[in-house]
Amino acid sequence: MTTQRTVSFPSQDLLDAVGELPANLKPVIWDLETDPDSPLEDIDITIFPYMADSAVLTNIRKAPNVSVIQTQTTGYDGIVDLIGDRAKIHTAAGVHAAATAEIALGLAIASLRGFPGAVRDQLEGSWNSQRWPGLADRTVGLIGVGGIGEEIRKRLDPFEVNLLRFGSSARVDEHGEIFSIKQLNQYAEQIEVLILIVPLTATTHHLVDAELMAKLPDGATIVNVARGPVVDTDALVAEVTSGRLNVASDVFDPEPLPADHPLWTCPNALITPHNGGNTEAFFPRMVKLLKRQLQAWSEGQDAENLVHTP
Amino acid sequence: MTTQRTVSFPSQDLLDAVGELPANLKPVIWDLETDPDSPLEDIDITIFPYMADSAVLTNIRKAPNVSVIQTQTTGYDGIVDLIGDRAKIHTAAGVHAAATAEIALGLAIASLRGFPGAVRDQLEGSWNSQRWPGLADRTVGLIGVGGIGEEIRKRLDPFEVNLLRFGSSARVDEHGEIFSIKQLNQYAEQIEVLILIVPLTATTHHLVDAELMAKLPDGATIVNVARGPVVDTDALVAEVTSGRLNVASDVFDPEPLPADHPLWTCPNALITPHNGGNTEAFFPRMVKLLKRQLQAWSEGQDAENLVHTP
Repeated sequence: MTTQRTVSFPSQDLLDAVGELPANLKPVIWDLETDPDSPLEDIDITIFPYMADSAVLTNIRKAPNVSVIQTQTTGYDGIVDLIGDRAKIHTAAGVHAAATAEIALGLAIASLRGFPGAVRDQLEGSWNSQRWPGLADRTVGLIGVGGIGEEIRKRLDPFEVNLLRFGSSARVDEHGEIFSIKQLNQYAEQIEVLILIVPLTATTHHLVDAELMAKLPDGATIVNVARGPVVDTDALVAEVTSGRLNVASDVFDPEPLPADHPLWTCPNALITPHNGGNTEAFFPRMVKLLKRQLQAWSEGQDAENLVHTP
Repeated sequence: MTTQRTVSFPSQDLLDAVGELPANLKPVIWDLETDPDSPLEDIDITIFPYMADSAVLTNIRKAPNVSVIQTQTTGYDGIVDLIGDRAKIHTAAGVHAAATAEIALGLAIASLRGFPGAVRDQLEGSWNSQRWPGLADRTVGLIGVGGIGEEIRKRLDPFEVNLLRFGSSARVDEHGEIFSIKQLNQYAEQIEVLILIVPLTATTHHLVDAELMAKLPDGATIVNVARGPVVDTDALVAEVTSGRLNVASDVFDPEPLPADHPLWTCPNALITPHNGGNTEAFFPRMVKLLKRQLQAWSEGQDAENLVHTP
């Protein structure tokens, strides 16, 4: 296939790192904010910027002939509505898996070993040795068994926890039983650490609501590395400000968390600002994925991680 | 064997948890601070308190017939000197392994993902999304391949790191090559995360000195879950206050870290107050070990974790 196509890159850096493109693909730089040098009508394939807000992404509408979108994120919630249902969407699933899985483990351990308190003590030069719950011997509920969920499972495996996994349907895989998310209420009273890594959909919106949280045991910790709205934030605030539950979360509803949000001041909340997939591992892994994607597009094939077809 | 022996327990709680003792073992409560109800001369076996300072442990000298010591720690540095070389010493190796290994991973991830800064930002309600190095794709030097070292290796295994292990001598085990600690200087320039879990001995005292630290690459992170004096603290302070290296450590020299110590105020230092093995997993695991030890002593056998014989 030698159809000539134009691919927009969000930055010169990314294009430089990818290196020479297949002969029938022509690159153009478009960050979706400033108009590119060539006509927007020419663009067939658009690589989105990494973490742009929806106001920026809406500009994709200015490029009427884009029929393929490549995101640099794993999630693509809202993108079909944003651009109109006219393009194939490929995600960066896999690229962020290691970084997101490691932050999930890090948030869990940090919360269960009292790191936030230690950092606050440090500001006062105060040495408060004490017993913390710890991760070993805990019952962990892992909600989501997709790509990143599997990476979290692998990393949890050596930590001597009692792992309960929940997916979209009850089934058995090579690592044992997977319960249905519908059964979560029935197991909630055992779950001391609830790790969330489901895509945000109509089904998972407010999956962790007041009713579910009420069933978690006292002192349980909610670790959210999925999307903020998977948790009912008002209900979360009630359980965390009371001190009954702990939260260690990288994602919030809304984001950024407003400066006056009650979670900021809770000593039992550990808040990281949506840094999930954003590590030094990201860029080289993204570049590797793009090289494979460009090769596929050059050959007129569907590229990897195709999650939506109009 | 039905020799009658007296075993001192540091607390009633621990004795209660262990339950009924073999018929030829008589329990007595002795915390090494207050004299016990029965004569100190009667005590044959002493279970040390978990984390007493040496001033307290020195009181073991008041019990002239103690010939077996059971610690609740993994390390036993200084204990032979403290009590005089007159008793077998059994440690709690294994009991703390999971908790100490998990805090090592936690400290590494927390430091490499900017959790200390996130906690400080949280105090000001400030959302600072940014790229951090992350653990994936890093070269990790694990110094120490004993019981806890192996538990750290297991937990690191799924994190997609390039692991270099160093032990007392160069050898190969089922997980690959182990370099000699003597080769550490030669590999140091590759090591982005240096995890320390060696016993404190004359050989490992100040193992990580100014010369070794100078060879670590800019931005490297030292994670110490061994003992404070394995690192030359003055040299560490120089490298951390300059901002060239990061430290995430559970152990210090001295402990507690004095209130005016320069490490407290370094934003690139994460300080936890020797909480390594101290989690809710500790007590039930200690109780299980003691049941096995008491059975062995009752039968006139050597118990587990015998690390010193006079």
